[in-house]
Amino acid sequence: MKPVKIGLMGLGTVGGGTATVLQRNADEITRRCGRSLQIVHAASLEIAGQKLLDPARVKLTENAWDVVNNPDVEIVVELIGGYTLARELVLKAIENGKHVVTANKALIAIHGDEIFKAAQAKGVIVAFEAAVAGGVPIIKAIREGLAANRIQWVAGIINGTGNFILTEMREKGRDFYDVLKEAQALGYAEADPTFDVEGIDAAHKLTILASVAFGIPLQFKKTFTEGISKIAREDVTYAEQLGYRIKHLGIARRTERGIEMRVHPTLIPERRLIANVNGVMNAVLVKSDAVGPTLYYGPGAGSEPTASAVIADLIDVARAMDADVSHRVAMLGFQPNAMSDVPVLSHDEFETACYLRMLAEDKPGVLADVTRIFADKHISIEAVIQKEPQEGQTRVQLILLTSKVLEKQMNAAIAAVEKLDAIEGKVTRIRMEHLG
Amino acid sequence: MKPVKIGLMGLGTVGGGTATVLQRNADEITRRCGRSLQIVHAASLEIAGQKLLDPARVKLTENAWDVVNNPDVEIVVELIGGYTLARELVLKAIENGKHVVTANKALIAIHGDEIFKAAQAKGVIVAFEAAVAGGVPIIKAIREGLAANRIQWVAGIINGTGNFILTEMREKGRDFYDVLKEAQALGYAEADPTFDVEGIDAAHKLTILASVAFGIPLQFKKTFTEGISKIAREDVTYAEQLGYRIKHLGIARRTERGIEMRVHPTLIPERRLIANVNGVMNAVLVKSDAVGPTLYYGPGAGSEPTASAVIADLIDVARAMDADVSHRVAMLGFQPNAMSDVPVLSHDEFETACYLRMLAEDKPGVLADVTRIFADKHISIEAVIQKEPQEGQTRVQLILLTSKVLEKQMNAAIAAVEKLDAIEGKVTRIRMEHLG
Repeated sequence: MKPVKIGLMGLGTVGGGTATVLQRNADEITRRCGRSLQIVHAASLEIAGQKLLDPARVKLTENAWDVVNNPDVEIVVELIGGYTLARELVLKAIENGKHVVTANKALIAIHGDEIFKAAQAKGVIVAFEAAVAGGVPIIKAIREGLAANRIQWVAGIINGTGNFILTEMREKGRDFYDVLKEAQALGYAEADPTFDVEGIDAAHKLTILASVAFGIPLQFKKTFTEGISKIAREDVTYAEQLGYRIKHLGIARRTERGIEMRVHPTLIPERRLIANVNGVMNAVLVKSDAVGPTLYYGPGAGSEPTASAVIADLIDVARAMDADVSHRVAMLGFQPNAMSDVPVLSHDEFETACYLRMLAEDKPGVLADVTRIFADKHISIEAVIQKEPQEGQTRVQLILLTSKVLEKQMNAAIAAVEKLDAIEGKVTRIRMEHLG
Repeated sequence: MKPVKIGLMGLGTVGGGTATVLQRNADEITRRCGRSLQIVHAASLEIAGQKLLDPARVKLTENAWDVVNNPDVEIVVELIGGYTLARELVLKAIENGKHVVTANKALIAIHGDEIFKAAQAKGVIVAFEAAVAGGVPIIKAIREGLAANRIQWVAGIINGTGNFILTEMREKGRDFYDVLKEAQALGYAEADPTFDVEGIDAAHKLTILASVAFGIPLQFKKTFTEGISKIAREDVTYAEQLGYRIKHLGIARRTERGIEMRVHPTLIPERRLIANVNGVMNAVLVKSDAVGPTLYYGPGAGSEPTASAVIADLIDVARAMDADVSHRVAMLGFQPNAMSDVPVLSHDEFETACYLRMLAEDKPGVLADVTRIFADKHISIEAVIQKEPQEGQTRVQLILLTSKVLEKQMNAAIAAVEKLDAIEGKVTRIRMEHLG
C-alpha cells in the first residue's frame, strides 16, 4: 500500500522524538501497520529539530501554516503546544480535510468540543493518546479495552513533576521547595512550575480522561484543582505513620448526583499498587463494573515515550482514515449522538474522607472543643492523633482522620475549628481515598 | 445500525459472565460501539448458564455445532475450553465465514498458527484478548498501544493462582502445600493444580504474548516451563532479606541470538512495581525501545473480568467485520506476510543471573571448593551468604547470587557443586531478573 503522508508541526522535545522513532523503527512500524508512515513536510523554528530530517525527502519550513495547507499531507501532527495558534492550525487542518494527531492536553481539554465537532462534520479523525500519561496507552485502554464496562471512577498520577517532588519528600524527608529547585535543575519542572505543581496540567488530562470514561463533553473549567505546594514535610511523615502515602491524584468519579472531577493531594493506603508509583512515572487506576480495578503505568512525559503514543495514533489513523466512520472508534470513546449530559458536580458537593492537621494549644478541653464541632455537623472522626509538643513549644500537632463527608460540611467545620482560640492558624486538609 | 448477531458457546464461568455483562451494560456498550451486540444462539450443557438468557430472544441448545452452523450468527464466541473440540468448532466457524472471539489460551498457543491461517484465508477475524491476563487489555496494549516500538522484553505475572500462593508464602510465612490446599478450597486452584503451579497455563499465555510482541509464530512447545512447587519457605525469606521478591514470571526476551521464552520462579527487586503485585492479580511489564517500561495490571481471571475482555473483542470485531482487511488490526499485531522467523532459543542458551541455595557441611574449605567451581567456569559470584546452622545441625545454608550466565554453564556448575562431598542433596536454583 502507499505510504501515509504526514505533516509534522513542531520539532522540539516530542516532535524530535517522533521524527527519530518514525525513522529508527520504520521497519517495525510497517510490519505492524501494513503501510509506511512518511513525514513529507515539517515545520519548526528550531534548527536542531530540522536537522533530524533529510531535506532531500522532507520539505522543511518555519511556517506551520505551510503544513496544514499542503495538499499532499494526509495527517497533521500538532506538537507545538499552547492553545491559541495550535487551535487555529488544528481547525484549519480539519477544514482542509486532514486528520490530526496531537499531544496537546490543554488544547483538547479547553477546545476539545469545538475540535471534535468540526472533525465529525468533516469526517476526519482527531487522535490524542499522547495528551494523557505520555507513553501509557490509557486513552486506548479506556476507550476500547474497557469498552464493555460501565466505568465507576478513574484515579491517576498524571503529572510526573508533582510525583517526583512528593516521592523525594517522602523518601528523603525533604521540603517541597527544596525538591522543586532540584526538579527545575533536572529539567523535570519548568522555570514557572505553576502548571505542574498547582495541578493545572493534571486537570487538563483529567478532563480528557473523564470524557472518555463517561462519555461527557470536555469540561475543564468545572474541574476542581488544588496543588501540592502546601504539603508540608510533616504531612508526608504523618501520612506514612498512619499507613498512607500522599499522591497528587486526578480523580473522576461517577456518583448518583453527578460526576466529580478533582485534582488534589490525596492520602491513599500504602498497600495500593498506585501508592508505589514513584519518581516521574505516571499511572492511572480505573475502576469498572465488570473487570474491577485495572492499572496502567509508564513514563508520562519525555521525548520518545510521548512520541510512542503519537505514533500509535498515527498507525491507528492510517488504518482507519480510508474506512467508513462506522468502522472507526468514536473519538471520545462514545458515539457523538450518545454523549451524556450528566452534570459535573460543583466543588462543595464532593464527598471524601479527610486528613486534618492543626496546631493546638496543649491544654485540657481543646480536643473536646474540636471534636464537638465535628459531632455537631455529623462528621465522624475515625482517628485522632496528638503529636507530643517539641521542646520549648506549647502547641501540639493534632491530626484527625474523618469519615466520608460532603465538601461543604467539611468547609463549615474547618471554618469553625479555625475560629477556636486554642487553634493557631489554618487547618491543613488533605483528602483521602481508599481506592478499593 | 443493525445489531450484531452473536453465537455463544459455553455458559460456564466466563460464558455466564459474558451473557450477564452484555445484558447489564447493553446501553453503555451501544453508546460506545454504535450498534448493539445481541446473543441470538447459545450452547451450554449447564442449566444454570441457560437460565441467564431469555429463551424468547435467544435460541438455546446443548449442541455447540448448532451455533457454528447457524447462518444467522456473525460472531462465534468460544468459551468451552480445551483444544480438541474447541479447535474443530473454531475451524468450522471460520469455514462458515464467521468471526471468532475466544478466551482459550491453550487453543491459541497450541493451534494458533493453523487457526489464524484459516481465518486469514477466509477473511474473518479471530480475537483473543481474554486469553491473556483476563480483563487486562494487554493484547491491545502491545499490538496497538505500543505499535511504534521495537519491544525488547515482556515479563508477566500471568497466573493468579501461582501469585496467590507466593504472596501468602511471603506475607504469612506459610508453606507451598499449605497455601495450595487453601487455594483449592477457595476455588482459586483446580483439584489438579498442575496447569497453574507448574507453569503450563502461564506458558500458554506467554506464547501468545511473545507472538504479538515480536511478530513470531506461536511456539508453545519451545517455551521453557518451571513451576513453583519446589519453592521453599526459606527461599522466600532469604529473597526478602536480600531485597527481592519471588514471582512466577513468564518472560519473553529478544536477544541478538534469538528469542528467549521462559516461565519460572524469579527473584526480582522489591522496589519494582511488579514485585508489589499481590494475591490473584496479574500484571505484565513491557520494555520497549521508545516508551521504555509500561505496566498493565488487573484481575487475570474470573467471570466478569474475563467477560470484559471477551466483550471488548466483540466490540472491536463488530466495528471491523464489514471493513476491508487493510482497515483491521493484524490479528497477531504484525501483517501475516511480515512475520519473523527469528529462532526461539533452546533452553540452555538462556542467560540469567541466579540465586543458588545449598546445604553445606559447616567446615573450613567448603566455600572455597564451591566458589572455585564457579571461577573455573567463569561465573562471577556477586554475593555469598552463609546462614548460621540451626541448633543441633552440622550443616549450613549457603546462598550464592551469581552474575548473568548462560544456562548451560550454570547447569554444568550446579552439577559439579552437587558432586562435592560437603554438599548435601540438590542445589536450589532460582533465576533472577532486574527488570530495569
